[in-house]
Amino acid sequence: MKASKTSVGIVGLGLMGRSIVVNMLAAGHPVKAIAPTPQDVEKAEERISQTLRHCDGLGLVAVPLEKALGNLLITEDYQALSDCALVIECVIEKIPVKQSVLGKIDAVVSPDTIIGTNTSAIPISTLQEMVSHPERFVGIHWAEPAYLTRFLEIICGEKTTLANARKISDMAVGWRKEPTILRKDIPGFITNRLMYAVFREVFALVEAGHISLTDIDKCFRYDAGSWMTLMGIFRRWDYLGLEDLGQMNLLFKKLSNTESVPETMEKIVENGGRGILTGSGLYQYSPAEADQWADSFAAFNEDIYDLAAQYPAITALNHETDAHQ
Amino acid sequence: MKASKTSVGIVGLGLMGRSIVVNMLAAGHPVKAIAPTPQDVEKAEERISQTLRHCDGLGLVAVPLEKALGNLLITEDYQALSDCALVIECVIEKIPVKQSVLGKIDAVVSPDTIIGTNTSAIPISTLQEMVSHPERFVGIHWAEPAYLTRFLEIICGEKTTLANARKISDMAVGWRKEPTILRKDIPGFITNRLMYAVFREVFALVEAGHISLTDIDKCFRYDAGSWMTLMGIFRRWDYLGLEDLGQMNLLFKKLSNTESVPETMEKIVENGGRGILTGSGLYQYSPAEADQWADSFAAFNEDIYDLAAQYPAITALNHETDAHQ
Repeated sequence: MKASKTSVGIVGLGLMGRSIVVNMLAAGHPVKAIAPTPQDVEKAEERISQTLRHCDGLGLVAVPLEKALGNLLITEDYQALSDCALVIECVIEKIPVKQSVLGKIDAVVSPDTIIGTNTSAIPISTLQEMVSHPERFVGIHWAEPAYLTRFLEIICGEKTTLANARKISDMAVGWRKEPTILRKDIPGFITNRLMYAVFREVFALVEAGHISLTDIDKCFRYDAGSWMTLMGIFRRWDYLGLEDLGQMNLLFKKLSNTESVPETMEKIVENGGRGILTGSGLYQYSPAEADQWADSFAAFNEDIYDLAAQYPAITALNHETDAHQ
Repeated sequence: MKASKTSVGIVGLGLMGRSIVVNMLAAGHPVKAIAPTPQDVEKAEERISQTLRHCDGLGLVAVPLEKALGNLLITEDYQALSDCALVIECVIEKIPVKQSVLGKIDAVVSPDTIIGTNTSAIPISTLQEMVSHPERFVGIHWAEPAYLTRFLEIICGEKTTLANARKISDMAVGWRKEPTILRKDIPGFITNRLMYAVFREVFALVEAGHISLTDIDKCFRYDAGSWMTLMGIFRRWDYLGLEDLGQMNLLFKKLSNTESVPETMEKIVENGGRGILTGSGLYQYSPAEADQWADSFAAFNEDIYDLAAQYPAITALNHETDAHQ
C-alpha cells in the first residue's frame, strides 16, 4: 500500500478536524473533508490553507505545497467519502450527533474502509456499535496541534481487531507520528488517565498545605521536564538503576486513593473558571497573559518537536529493546 | 547578603557531592569541601576542575574561571567549615554515617549556620535531631547533574522554620535554580512521590496487557513531553480549559490503588537487573546502548536547559499569578 496516496476522509471541521486535515495533506494524502454546514466550507478552506503554509515553512510538508493544497476537497456531500480507505469523524462529543454522522459514513464507504473517531470522552466500544463491520472501527486520538505533535494514540474497542489498529499505526508513521496502541478501551485512554493519576496525588498534597500549586508546577517543569521528552517513564527507571523497590513498597501505601474531585477544582469550575479561556482557573490571567501562553505553547511545541528529532538513534532503539512485551 | 560571596561547605565528594561543589563554584561561592578519605582529595579536585571547565564552556560560570577554581579548598579537616553560612552533607544514605558527619559539622559551625542534607531516602525530621538548633536544618534535593538542572527541592523537617527554608530558596536563585519548598517532610518528597503515583498506574495497565511498556514510554515522551517543560501540571489544566470534572469523578474511581510492588519489577530486581548499570532492566541494553543513553541524557539535559531559558517571560509570570496559595 502506498500510504501517501490513500484518500482519507475527515468529517467535522472544528479546530481538531482542521488540524487533522492539515496533518493528512502535509503527509501527501488526498483529503475529502465533510463540512457539516455550508458556511463552514469557505471558512475552513481559508484556515486550512493558512495552517498548511505555516507547516510548509517548518519543513513539515512531504509534497510540493501546491500539490498538497490541490489535494483538498471540502464538501457537504458524504458521497465524496466513497473511495476513502480511512474516514475519521471529528464532530462534537454528543452521542446522537456521532450516531447520525457515523450512519452517514457507514452508508457510503466500502466494508473494509477503516472508520476512526477522534473522541476522547465516549467509549470506542459504544461508538463501534453504530457502524457495520465494527472490527474496522478504531479510536484515533491526536494531541493538539495535530499536524505538529508526534503523539498519536490508537484505541481498540471491544470488537476492533489488532490488525486494523496496526494498519493505522503503520499509516501514522507517514504522518510523522510515534503511534501507540491501546489494546483495551479504558476510560481516559492512556494519556488522560495518567494525568488524572498525577492530579489525584498533587491535589492531595496542595490541599493539605504541604506545597504550593506554583511549586508543584516548577517540580514538573524542571525535574520531570528535564528527562520526559527523552526517556518516558520506564526507561527513566532503568536509567536510575531500579534500586528503590523498598521505597516503592512504602510509597504505594502513602499515595492518595481519593475518589473525590478536589474542592478547589469544584469551586473554580462552579464559578465559571475555564483557565486561560476565561482568565480564571488554577491561576489568574489577564487577556495579554492568556494570549502569551497560547503563543508560547505554539512556539514551544515547534521547538520540542525539533529537539526530540535530534535523538533519532534513541527513537530507533525504542522499537528493539523492550524485553517485556 | 551578597549570596555570591558566602562560603559554602560540602561534606562528601561522591558523584552528587562533586556535582554540587561545581554548582556552588560556578555561582561564585568560596567552597570548603570535606573529603572523607585522603585518597579522595586529589581525585575529587581533578574531576571537579574538569566539570567546572565544561560548565564554563556552556556559559554557566558567573565569575572568571580561574577565580572559581581558586575558590575551592578540599580538606579532611572539618575546622575549615567554621566560617560557612551553609554546610551541606552529601555522604552515603546510612543513618550512622550521617549521624557521625552531622555531629562533626555541628561541632564547628556557628549556631545560625544553615545545615543541609542531600538525602532522598531518610526523613529530614530524623536527621535534624542530630544537630543543635534543629530549626536551621533543611533538606536540599538536587537533580543530577546538579550544576546543570534547574530543579531544586527544599524540604522542611518538623522543626525547620519556613524562614530558614526561604533563605536557601533565595540563595538558590543565584545557583541558577527554580527552587521549590516542600513545607512538610513527606516520604519521597514531591518529585519521587509523583513518579511513584504514575508508576502505580502504568504498571497496572501494562500488567493487565492493555498497552506495552514501549508504548507507555512513547505516550510520555510525545504527549506529556510536548508540554511538561513549558507548563507543569496545573497550568496545563488551565490551558485545556478545566472542563473535565465529570471525567475526573469517573477516573478517580478507576485508577489503581494497589499497595503491591509490580511482579515484573520484583522479578527484574531479584535477578540483579539494575537497568543501564547492568544492561538488564525494564528494557535490555548492550554496553554500547547503555553508554549511548548516558551520553544522550547529558546532551539532552543541556538542550532542554537552553530551551526552557527561551521562555523567561513565562517563568516570571509563575511567581505572580497563582491565585490559590
